[in-house]
Amino acid sequence: MKSIPTLQDIKNAHQRIQKYIHRTPVFTSQQLNNETGNQIYLKCENFQKVGAFKFRGASNVVFSFEDEFAERGVATHSSGNHAQAIALAAKMRGIPAYIVMPENSPQVKKKAVAGYGGIIRYCKSTLSAREEVLQEVIQETGAHYIPSYDDPGIIAGQGTATFELLQDHPDLDVIMAPVGGGGLLSGTSISAKNVNPDVTVIGAEPANADDAYRSFKSGKRQPIKTNDTIADGLRTELSDLTFSIIYKNTDDIITVSEEAIISAMRFIWERMKIIIEPSSAVPIAVLMEQKLSVENKKIGVIISGGNVDLEKLPWMS
Amino acid sequence: MKSIPTLQDIKNAHQRIQKYIHRTPVFTSQQLNNETGNQIYLKCENFQKVGAFKFRGASNVVFSFEDEFAERGVATHSSGNHAQAIALAAKMRGIPAYIVMPENSPQVKKKAVAGYGGIIRYCKSTLSAREEVLQEVIQETGAHYIPSYDDPGIIAGQGTATFELLQDHPDLDVIMAPVGGGGLLSGTSISAKNVNPDVTVIGAEPANADDAYRSFKSGKRQPIKTNDTIADGLRTELSDLTFSIIYKNTDDIITVSEEAIISAMRFIWERMKIIIEPSSAVPIAVLMEQKLSVENKKIGVIISGGNVDLEKLPWMS
Repeated sequence: MKSIPTLQDIKNAHQRIQKYIHRTPVFTSQQLNNETGNQIYLKCENFQKVGAFKFRGASNVVFSFEDEFAERGVATHSSGNHAQAIALAAKMRGIPAYIVMPENSPQVKKKAVAGYGGIIRYCKSTLSAREEVLQEVIQETGAHYIPSYDDPGIIAGQGTATFELLQDHPDLDVIMAPVGGGGLLSGTSISAKNVNPDVTVIGAEPANADDAYRSFKSGKRQPIKTNDTIADGLRTELSDLTFSIIYKNTDDIITVSEEAIISAMRFIWERMKIIIEPSSAVPIAVLMEQKLSVENKKIGVIISGGNVDLEKLPWMS
Repeated sequence: MKSIPTLQDIKNAHQRIQKYIHRTPVFTSQQLNNETGNQIYLKCENFQKVGAFKFRGASNVVFSFEDEFAERGVATHSSGNHAQAIALAAKMRGIPAYIVMPENSPQVKKKAVAGYGGIIRYCKSTLSAREEVLQEVIQETGAHYIPSYDDPGIIAGQGTATFELLQDHPDLDVIMAPVGGGGLLSGTSISAKNVNPDVTVIGAEPANADDAYRSFKSGKRQPIKTNDTIADGLRTELSDLTFSIIYKNTDDIITVSEEAIISAMRFIWERMKIIIEPSSAVPIAVLMEQKLSVENKKIGVIISGGNVDLEKLPWMS
C-alpha cells in the first residue's frame, strides 16, 4: 500500500511548487450566492497553468526528484489535463516528458501536449494498449512513470489548492471538490481536515459515473459501472489509495444528473464570465440543486479546470 | 455643445459609484505577452455588474440626480448592455427604468432587462420608431432620458475604469479601448491623458465599422457607412461630443478585420479562460496582428464586457 500524505507533505509540496504555479484567485458572485442560499468561494484552478489543478501535482512530483534521477525524464499515459501538466512541468525542469496518447485523441489535445514540449507516443485507445506502450517507453528511456492520481506526491500537490484557499478564507464551513479518480478530493480532504477538523468535506460526482458514491456508502471500493458523463475529467475510478483517504476524511459524496451539470456550467459561464469545464460544474450543480442541505454557510469549491472544446458546447444540440 | 468632462468629473464619478460597482481585477497572461511581444494588463469589465463597463456610466448618471428629480424615473432606448445597466442602476436607486426595445430583440436580452426590474416598452426595430416610442414614454411618465454614450455623465462614469487601472498600474505606457459610439474611449482618454500626459491612448475599431478611424484621420466627424461587424457593441457612430474628446486626447485609431477579431476572442477564451465579447477582442486583435508598432511596453486594455450569445459562437460555422 502506498503511503498516505500528511498535511506536512502538502506544506512541503506548496513550498516546492509555489514559484512555478499560479496562486489562483478566489471568485465570488452575488448571483451564485442568491441561487444557492449560501456564500460560495470558488478557488479558480481554471486559471492555473495548463488550465487545471493537475499542474500542482505534476510539478510537485517532477520537482521532488533528485537531479540525477530526474534527468532520464518522466512518462505517463493520458490524453487530458494530466498529460499537459506533466509536459509543462518537465519542460520547466528541463527534462524530457514522454506522453502516451491514443492516436484518435482530439487534435487540440495533441497540439497542447506538443506545445508544452511533450514527446508523444501514440497507442490504440484501449487501456491495455496504453499500458503496453508506456512500458515500452519506460524500458527504452528509463523515464519515471507519474500516474495521474494514484500517487502520494500527486495527491500532496493537489492538496495545495485547498491549503491556499484556507489561507485566504480560514472561516469556511464546507469545502467541496469533484471526484473522479480521487486525487483532487484526497488532497482536498487531507488539507481541509488537518487545517480545521470542523470543516465539512464533500465530494461531488456525476450520477453516471458514481463509483466513489457507491464505494463511500458501502465502505468498500466498488468498480465503476458506467462512465457516460459529460464531465470527462471524472470518468475514472478510485484507487485503493484514494478510496482509503476519501473514506477517512470526507463527510459525504453527492451525485448529480447530467442535466444539472450542464445547467450549472452554463450558469457560471453566463453570470460569472469564466470558462469552467464540465467536471468543475459538478459541485456547483450539487449546490444549485439544493442537494447539500445547508443554508447561509461559507462554502469553498475547487474549480478543477477550464479546458473545454469550444467548437462543441454541451448545451448545443 | 455638451460640456467635456474633466478628470475631476471622473474622480467625482468614482467617489459616487464606488459602493455600487465592482472594482474589477486586472488580469495578465504570459501567453498573451509572448504572442504580442508586450506586457498586457487587461482591466476586466466583463466582471463588472451586468457584465460590461456600461454599468459605470449608467450608475454615475442615475446616482447624480437629486431625489425629487430622480423619482420620476429614467428612460432609454437600447437592446444591449446599456439597457441592462440603466435598469440595474435604477433598481438600486429605487426608481423606475423605462427601456424601449425593438420587439424582435433576442429573448435573452428581454429577460435580462426584465430581470433587473426594467419596464420594457416594445417598438419596431427602426431608429425612428425607437425614438418615437421613447418620446411617448417620456411625455407620459416624466422620466429622464439617459443616452448610451452622448452624455458627459456617462463619459465620466466610463472613465473610472481607466482611473482604477492607473491606480493599480501607474507605469503603463499605452492604454487601449475599443471604439463604437465613443463613450468608453472618451472617458478612457480623458482619464489617461490627465493622470499621465505621457501615456499613449489608442482606439481600436472594426474595419467594417470604421467611422471613428476615418473621422480621426480626416479631422472631421464622418458618418458610419457599414456596420456589418461581429463586434455588436461597436456598430454605432461617434457623436460631436465623443469625436471632439477623442480627436483631442487620442494618439491613434487602428482598425482590424473580422477574422482577426474572432481569432483574438478565441485566443483569450482558450488561454485565459475568461469570457469576453467580440467588442473586447478588438484591441487584442490590434496587438496580436502587430498593428501597433511597439515592443516590450506595458499596455493596458479595457476589456469592455462579456455578454455573448452562448448558443452561437463566432468561430462556429
